Amino acid sequence: MSHRVADALGYKDMDNISAASSRHNSENLPYVHKVGVPPKQNLLKEIAGTLKETFFADDPLRQFKDQPRSRKLVLVFQALFPIFEWGRNYSLSKFKGDLIAGLTIASLCIPQDIGYAKLANLDPQYGLYSSFVPPLIYAFMGSSRDIAIGPVAVVSLLLGTLLQNEIDPSENPVDYLRLAFTATFFAGITQFTLGFFRLGFLIDFLSHAAIVGFMAGAAITIALQQLKGLLGIKKFTKKTDIVSVMRSVWSAAHHGWNWETILIGMSFLAFLLVAKYIGKKKKKLFWVPAIAPLISVVLSTFFVYITRADKHGVQIVKHIRRGINPSSLNEIFFSGEYLAKGFRIGVLAGMIALTEAVAIGRTFASMKDYQLEGNKEMVALGTMNVVGSMTSCYVATGSFSRSAVNYMAGCNTAVSNIVMSSVVLLTLELITPLFKYTPNAILASIIISAVISLVDIEAMTLIWKVDKFDFVACMGAFFGVVFSSVEIGLLIAVSISFAKILLQVTRPRTAVLGKIPRTTVYRNILQYPAATKVPGILIVRVDSAIYFSNSNYVKERILRWLADEEEQLKESSRPGVQYLIVEMSPVTDIDTSGIHAMEELFRSLEKRDVKLVLANPGPAVVDKLHASKFHEMIGEDRIFLTVEDAIVTCAPKMDLEP
Amino acid sequence: MSHRVADALGYKDMDNISAASSRHNSENLPYVHKVGVPPKQNLLKEIAGTLKETFFADDPLRQFKDQPRSRKLVLVFQALFPIFEWGRNYSLSKFKGDLIAGLTIASLCIPQDIGYAKLANLDPQYGLYSSFVPPLIYAFMGSSRDIAIGPVAVVSLLLGTLLQNEIDPSENPVDYLRLAFTATFFAGITQFTLGFFRLGFLIDFLSHAAIVGFMAGAAITIALQQLKGLLGIKKFTKKTDIVSVMRSVWSAAHHGWNWETILIGMSFLAFLLVAKYIGKKKKKLFWVPAIAPLISVVLSTFFVYITRADKHGVQIVKHIRRGINPSSLNEIFFSGEYLAKGFRIGVLAGMIALTEAVAIGRTFASMKDYQLEGNKEMVALGTMNVVGSMTSCYVATGSFSRSAVNYMAGCNTAVSNIVMSSVVLLTLELITPLFKYTPNAILASIIISAVISLVDIEAMTLIWKVDKFDFVACMGAFFGVVFSSVEIGLLIAVSISFAKILLQVTRPRTAVLGKIPRTTVYRNILQYPAATKVPGILIVRVDSAIYFSNSNYVKERILRWLADEEEQLKESSRPGVQYLIVEMSPVTDIDTSGIHAMEELFRSLEKRDVKLVLANPGPAVVDKLHASKFHEMIGEDRIFLTVEDAIVTCAPKMDLEP
Repeated sequence: MSHRVADALGYKDMDNISAASSRHNSENLPYVHKVGVPPKQNLLKEIAGTLKETFFADDPLRQFKDQPRSRKLVLVFQALFPIFEWGRNYSLSKFKGDLIAGLTIASLCIPQDIGYAKLANLDPQYGLYSSFVPPLIYAFMGSSRDIAIGPVAVVSLLLGTLLQNEIDPSENPVDYLRLAFTATFFAGITQFTLGFFRLGFLIDFLSHAAIVGFMAGAAITIALQQLKGLLGIKKFTKKTDIVSVMRSVWSAAHHGWNWETILIGMSFLAFLLVAKYIGKKKKKLFWVPAIAPLISVVLSTFFVYITRADKHGVQIVKHIRRGINPSSLNEIFFSGEYLAKGFRIGVLAGMIALTEAVAIGRTFASMKDYQLEGNKEMVALGTMNVVGSMTSCYVATGSFSRSAVNYMAGCNTAVSNIVMSSVVLLTLELITPLFKYTPNAILASIIISAVISLVDIEAMTLIWKVDKFDFVACMGAFFGVVFSSVEIGLLIAVSISFAKILLQVTRPRTAVLGKIPRTTVYRNILQYPAATKVPGILIVRVDSAIYFSNSNYVKERILRWLADEEEQLKESSRPGVQYLIVEMSPVTDIDTSGIHAMEELFRSLEKRDVKLVLANPGPAVVDKLHASKFHEMIGEDRIFLTVEDAIVTCAPKMDLEP
Repeated sequence: MSHRVADALGYKDMDNISAASSRHNSENLPYVHKVGVPPKQNLLKEIAGTLKETFFADDPLRQFKDQPRSRKLVLVFQALFPIFEWGRNYSLSKFKGDLIAGLTIASLCIPQDIGYAKLANLDPQYGLYSSFVPPLIYAFMGSSRDIAIGPVAVVSLLLGTLLQNEIDPSENPVDYLRLAFTATFFAGITQFTLGFFRLGFLIDFLSHAAIVGFMAGAAITIALQQLKGLLGIKKFTKKTDIVSVMRSVWSAAHHGWNWETILIGMSFLAFLLVAKYIGKKKKKLFWVPAIAPLISVVLSTFFVYITRADKHGVQIVKHIRRGINPSSLNEIFFSGEYLAKGFRIGVLAGMIALTEAVAIGRTFASMKDYQLEGNKEMVALGTMNVVGSMTSCYVATGSFSRSAVNYMAGCNTAVSNIVMSSVVLLTLELITPLFKYTPNAILASIIISAVISLVDIEAMTLIWKVDKFDFVACMGAFFGVVFSSVEIGLLIAVSISFAKILLQVTRPRTAVLGKIPRTTVYRNILQYPAATKVPGILIVRVDSAIYFSNSNYVKERILRWLADEEEQLKESSRPGVQYLIVEMSPVTDIDTSGIHAMEELFRSLEKRDVKLVLANPGPAVVDKLHASKFHEMIGEDRIFLTVEDAIVTCAPKMDLEP
């Protein structure tokens, strides 16, 4: 056996292998490889490396390498405005796809915008404004080809809730509107800053699971809000939690809901859901649910107009201001008490909008397999919202539903956004007056049918199957939103996400390894029942970098493994453990606290006269073991390339076969 | 070659190895081991497991296993009061050691206590009180044998600073004192709670490096504060930062420092430092620095008494209340505005005190190799401070200097604390009046000589050598304390520590592996220059669990490795990469976001027709790959036990020798 292993480890003419990777072992045993000591990096290089991986992981300057100055300038310009890059080889055939897609999402966004504006307690036209300017800007700066920009349900709701905590829109609509613009401005600034300083990775701290839960919760909340419009209820609670909403629905019940409203609302809701269903079943009929909303708006408006149902208490939109976005630059609060409030709300809304947009962008990017530069994307979204805030728009971002339609309608580039916004422009200029008789009930049913798909049962079940902890995060966010409020839900989501990270770094896994028969590999005995322990030797693998946050735990856990092992051996009255091999392959790094823990471990083992042996420490670790002279403490010849090497050397007389 | 590997992998009569660990490979190739799929755990067991590792990592109930009820009760009692466990086999010989140690630390603590009380802006006797009750209680409940309990410099300073931000001790001494007791009470509650709910691991989040820096900074600050006493300055700044302290020292200079004070102070400081030096040089003369303070107090007091130097402006202690601790239960603010403030201060002071005590406890525990149960320790410290707050003590904890002396004086058990506190008792009852003429200058010099050793240059240099990032944390805390304030320093320390954790989880390391010639092991090519890449195959190792916080990074990083590789291959016009092997040994866990990332990776690889292969996924990962059906997506036969297996199967026609 020993021979075969030696053979496998190749002791023949090792000389032609770099000295660093072979040495003669004191006890005349087969040669074993020595652990490589990486070339010492100087401090600056080290730091530079870390910074690069942290902030420039996507290596944005790769394309700038060895280019003439003039070319560089062009590249910078193109990096800022990708449209000038892909625009050059833009073709008619591409435009065909974009045109169709653009028209489809336009027909979808117009009714949605009007409804979403209501969610943010704003007049309908502001929804349309936000579908005009931002998409244009994004088309020039954004790098996603499939995302559809505009106001979205969740952000509108969040903004609405946060804003009305500060100002009551019914009492003081002017300041409310100004605060909305202020928030939008700072939302943009936040997004821009994150992107510019390449802090994009911060949004990764909101876990996928948490987002799924949050979105679902928000969807439910939004749907509940629509009961007002759908049942034609006059006085409705300002709160968004399910309990108080339901209470005000019942209280409204006994002095009568408006049956005409309900009739219209429900019938069209049914229509929309059927359309949605068809779209789901037959992928190539995706346009059915896409245009259904507009159709139902047209029909219902016409119907109300001729029957004058509004005289019978069917609430209608009444008035949408005609014409394109007025400037709102001097509406933004740049001073006074509302500045801080606007800032706080803006940061929050901005982050959520960002998370949603980036999630969408990544999804479609990976579907069509093109790279999406998160940070550049954020700069684009930020600029778009800053400009938006100066042109009477509120926070816009990528919409799940519309992006999906955009993708299915076969969009090729961001041109589809330009098409959409020009349609919106025409709408604003010409046909807004026609919306006068549109019943609110329709808008309500449109919103419901739109948000319903944010409740992603499939994803939830998958999360449940894959990772229970993720599921807790998911449900936490969900119930937080539904039973309390959007902010609380968000708070729960974030804190659970963080708790998970902290847990990960405080309590890394450890495993006892056994030899898989007739191989030279050692694996977790719990995972591989066939793996057998080597008598007199305990092999423990530590599955994480050893840092201050877990060093003590790791030390104590290893000692506990040892204690358990010794107990078992005593019971079966076999000889005790003589060597403790710590398999360090997964230990990617170690810090001063970690070194301390290892030293303490070494000392306590000495007292039990068990010898400490290390297998395969990584470069960073070897580095630090040397810096701290720990390798001298335990002895150079106690550090091996592989567990097998260690065992071959430590226990030459043992028969490794079980 | 292939044969030898096959042999190494042992294809002979595999049947007698559990079915799970062998399978016949479709292409008639040597048998390779199959990756073991761990038995499906049920949810509850899973959760229970996690909770156990998190909160009961030290397995405190181990000793309770299969014991009769009555025995259990005894054990619980003993667990609560370890003294009744070790007390039973306590011997006279042990007592001898404890007696000497106790007397030594008593002689050391009495002068220190008086000085430290001043740091907390309290009358001298409160220092002594805090060295009487708390040590007694700790002796009964604590599990460390070497720690010496009492007031300590850093906590006293912290408490003093925080308290005087709320109440000016000179204007309103009564409320100040009451707030001090309130803070102490909540400090105790905090410590108790952390221990009781087994949240002890929370203090691990303050990294060793940060503590070193913080301690050093605090030491400097404290020493600077002593200039007041040492130079006999009347009006001194309330601020603790070096700038304002120095300013007020200079401003005091021109209307004259008190030369008698300086003379006495400096000469005794010199004496103390010499004594310290001797103690350092000759380990068995440890008692010299230990009793030096008391000697200098006696001498200087006597000297002042005969010369009446206090008439010449040498400031003296004047008065220490005689008698033991009065009750202070009804002094604690259990209501009113000060409740919240006391709580805030208490939590902070409690945490710091805890960190210090636990650090000391662990150090000595590992020196004498006995286990210290962090959480039990915290309960003891908490109780001790709660009781303390009701008996006119302020926050007490383990003192570095005194514990070291205690250890060197050969203490065996916590009895040395009992001895000490009885000496303190006698002092309070009998000789406090004698301290009347003790000059403050002496106390100042005693404190300086005590705290000076908290500046651990050695540790700092080691940190610098081992881990640059740790050094940044260390210096951040240090300068924060010195140039701003204790809180700021603390804040910096904590936030840098957290930043490090977040960095760790967002930007895990990845490495390209190469085959070490004539072996079956694959290692980081940067660490092992001898390692050679396998043509047509790229092997990447991911060095961390793949979680939402890093999943996108990992995916993109792997793709970047691939891009780089392909570029190189193109340049040297060699065939492109056909297989991407992801070595997953270090990937200890994966969550839903991680699975998503892997799926996206798989898709983008497909587009480039590169085949994705996984090597050695751990139990948790295999579990989740199955739960999410990812293994079906990439194909069962693409998951291998080792990189070698993967290569043997993927590239049968390739010659693996370089």
